[in-house]
Amino acid sequence: MNAPVGNQNLRREIPAGFLDALKSRFGERFSTAQSVCEHHGRDESPYPAMLPHGVVFVQTTEEVAWVARHCNDHKVPLIPYGAGSSLEGHILAVQGGISLDLSGMNQVLAVHPEDFTVTVQAGVTRKQLNEEIRDTGLFFPIDPGADASLGGMAATRASGTNAVRYGTMRENVMSLKVVTADGRVIETANRARKSSAGYDLTRVFVGSEGTLGIITEVTVRLYPQPEAVSAAICNFPTLDAAVQSVIEIIQMGVPIARVEFMDTAAVKAINAYSKLDLKESPLLLFEFHGSPSGVKEQAEVVQEITRGNGGMDFEWADRPEDRSRLWTARHNAYFAGLQLRPGCRASTTDVCVPISRLAECVSETAAELDLASFPYTIVGHVGDGNFHVLMLLDPDDPAQWEESEQLNRRLVERAIRMEGTCTGEHGVGLHKMEFMLAEHGRDALDLMAALKRAFDPHDILNPGKIIPPA
Amino acid sequence: MNAPVGNQNLRREIPAGFLDALKSRFGERFSTAQSVCEHHGRDESPYPAMLPHGVVFVQTTEEVAWVARHCNDHKVPLIPYGAGSSLEGHILAVQGGISLDLSGMNQVLAVHPEDFTVTVQAGVTRKQLNEEIRDTGLFFPIDPGADASLGGMAATRASGTNAVRYGTMRENVMSLKVVTADGRVIETANRARKSSAGYDLTRVFVGSEGTLGIITEVTVRLYPQPEAVSAAICNFPTLDAAVQSVIEIIQMGVPIARVEFMDTAAVKAINAYSKLDLKESPLLLFEFHGSPSGVKEQAEVVQEITRGNGGMDFEWADRPEDRSRLWTARHNAYFAGLQLRPGCRASTTDVCVPISRLAECVSETAAELDLASFPYTIVGHVGDGNFHVLMLLDPDDPAQWEESEQLNRRLVERAIRMEGTCTGEHGVGLHKMEFMLAEHGRDALDLMAALKRAFDPHDILNPGKIIPPA
Repeated sequence: MNAPVGNQNLRREIPAGFLDALKSRFGERFSTAQSVCEHHGRDESPYPAMLPHGVVFVQTTEEVAWVARHCNDHKVPLIPYGAGSSLEGHILAVQGGISLDLSGMNQVLAVHPEDFTVTVQAGVTRKQLNEEIRDTGLFFPIDPGADASLGGMAATRASGTNAVRYGTMRENVMSLKVVTADGRVIETANRARKSSAGYDLTRVFVGSEGTLGIITEVTVRLYPQPEAVSAAICNFPTLDAAVQSVIEIIQMGVPIARVEFMDTAAVKAINAYSKLDLKESPLLLFEFHGSPSGVKEQAEVVQEITRGNGGMDFEWADRPEDRSRLWTARHNAYFAGLQLRPGCRASTTDVCVPISRLAECVSETAAELDLASFPYTIVGHVGDGNFHVLMLLDPDDPAQWEESEQLNRRLVERAIRMEGTCTGEHGVGLHKMEFMLAEHGRDALDLMAALKRAFDPHDILNPGKIIPPA
Repeated sequence: MNAPVGNQNLRREIPAGFLDALKSRFGERFSTAQSVCEHHGRDESPYPAMLPHGVVFVQTTEEVAWVARHCNDHKVPLIPYGAGSSLEGHILAVQGGISLDLSGMNQVLAVHPEDFTVTVQAGVTRKQLNEEIRDTGLFFPIDPGADASLGGMAATRASGTNAVRYGTMRENVMSLKVVTADGRVIETANRARKSSAGYDLTRVFVGSEGTLGIITEVTVRLYPQPEAVSAAICNFPTLDAAVQSVIEIIQMGVPIARVEFMDTAAVKAINAYSKLDLKESPLLLFEFHGSPSGVKEQAEVVQEITRGNGGMDFEWADRPEDRSRLWTARHNAYFAGLQLRPGCRASTTDVCVPISRLAECVSETAAELDLASFPYTIVGHVGDGNFHVLMLLDPDDPAQWEESEQLNRRLVERAIRMEGTCTGEHGVGLHKMEFMLAEHGRDALDLMAALKRAFDPHDILNPGKIIPPA
């Protein structure tokens, strides 16, 4: 694979004795085995593996602090690893060093149902969390698709299908325990629901992708499990009509929990993969949370608005099994897409624009993609203005990779021109670094670099990510 | 007044020619007049005025950048000034320097109703904003009581009575235009509803109280004006019963827009001031936003829950005039409180704790206050766990000031012990600096100091605030 990556030439030398010290401190929980390093040197991105020199499997914050001090003292890179589900090369060891595997830190530490908060170790995954708190009547809503770790989700500022109602990790992380580059341990905040007491260290670390500190504990907000849940599906003649419906639905104050767009190709893929018979046209998939009568009212308002915009075949899915079938299908859209071209290699885009520009942005993009030499599908978190193009590439054809990269570049330029961003929820990693200057401008990037230097003077924390070389 | 303040001995020397350059650049819009400096050297805190050397009335971001460069070149303090409504000494010129009056930057720059965003200059006040966007059917919900400027509200991470539903400035600022210490102009983000593209500069500046950069434009989220609004009031035998009701209401998923607590003294004060005849016991005041049937359903659920907790005399206020009378009374609680002791000097506390600890925190505090030599009232944003004690002090009795400071210290210690914060929404300014170490710990404070040095190496931006000297 010829994925473009800078900084590989910067692979650092490991000082003599450095690895031995890790071995003697961690024994079997430190490994330099090729297979272990390979597993920790790749994620779900299209990049080839870039291997760390070794992997430490930590169990406590104190161990993380010990490793950080050791790496900082010897200027060796340190890369936190959660579930390995990142999409943009976040965890690749471009400069070598130590991969810090936090998956063993998987304890739910404190549930406070009356305060709607839970504190977990960074390696707890979102499915595990919801499993463990089910009896409280509360749930954690952020759902990026993959069963990511909470630490990784915080570090990536993840979101997903129900951000339109519940927000992203930015809004839902209340506090973090963080190990600094030099091995100090801080709490970024307390459990108060709001605070004006100084700089917002929580939000400094949320989205910092392991480059400013290592998250070892996460406190997040929880929400009441909705009394009633209902779903609906609606076909539209055009994307424009679908987007206009969503704008009006939000203007009416309908608190939709999810609203997802699929283009015709995505619907076809889902029909084939999940054995459904959805009408093959652009469609919106809705989910409503609330009281039984509230959910009914929401659906009625939505039906009326969609009808006014040319929506057809508005269909309710009230029974849990029907709802679950639809939403499972949506969740499988990625795998369904892959099946459109068995054996393909996939690349996914992630722009997010103001919703008023969404239809225009998707339409221009689709017009270009229709000329591409490979198939694609589009799904979108319409309420947030965020959509993904899944590009299905021939793994043996480097020209198709380059073609897809060019299409993504033009897509990102378009999104930035429309006051949007190159990444709504996947993060920067390696893949989006080239867009950071265009999106933020030199002066804002300089501030980010100043922040990085202030927090990590020896550049040991996940180096070579987020901020492109000046 | 003997308000305790450090750093006053640090009043800096102004280099020769520095003020002349401002005069020649800004003419009439630069003033060193005593009355102008006095006006800009005080806020709504109990502190005596601390005067800047001069005041610049700016009209554009470019002018702000010019002043910043001038101050940075000469290491002269620069203090942004919005509406002057801060409560903790935020804008006092403890080291002298230049007060930068942004109130003339009062244009609403761009309304995007389809995107639910508006961009304003920093000097626009929240009432002005809501006046100007009324026709769009949208509104900006954050309401700290005072008619503060949007720039000041962002800088203070303000909130208020409806944060329980709509969040605080932390959640509602989408992007800022900021002038850096050395006079560069950046945008912290774009208008996409969410983004994972690098460090969250927006949240770095929200709550930074003018110490990291000068906010000149603010883009915030807007919400649909609710189709129906209803209010209700309910008396309780104890605070505990009131708080328990709120916890259950949130657990039931009722999207209450506001829920305010008042103690008996506050109710008495309001009755006297606003000519009401509310029953004089602890009470909760609710507001519901939604569709007509949704609002009705919310109120019914709330009534049932309050009844189950011993709530009495649940009363609806459906008619706009009744609703408005109740909520105006709540808004005037501060002035009503002052009238309990005409001519008094008031000091207000601002702790915020997890809601499960709220009743305990308020009760312990009230027990101590009952022994104080001055009267007090308590009002609280119960849904957030945030409450204010209004202490009514004899302005000619320094011992009472000291007594109130001691009570606040114990209150803050209690809040921190309960995993809370010294300030839920008023900010640090001068008054809360002494609690920053206890609340955050040395290592987290060191990170804040590192951030400050990285963004403002000459310490010119509102120096002597937020971070106590190490």
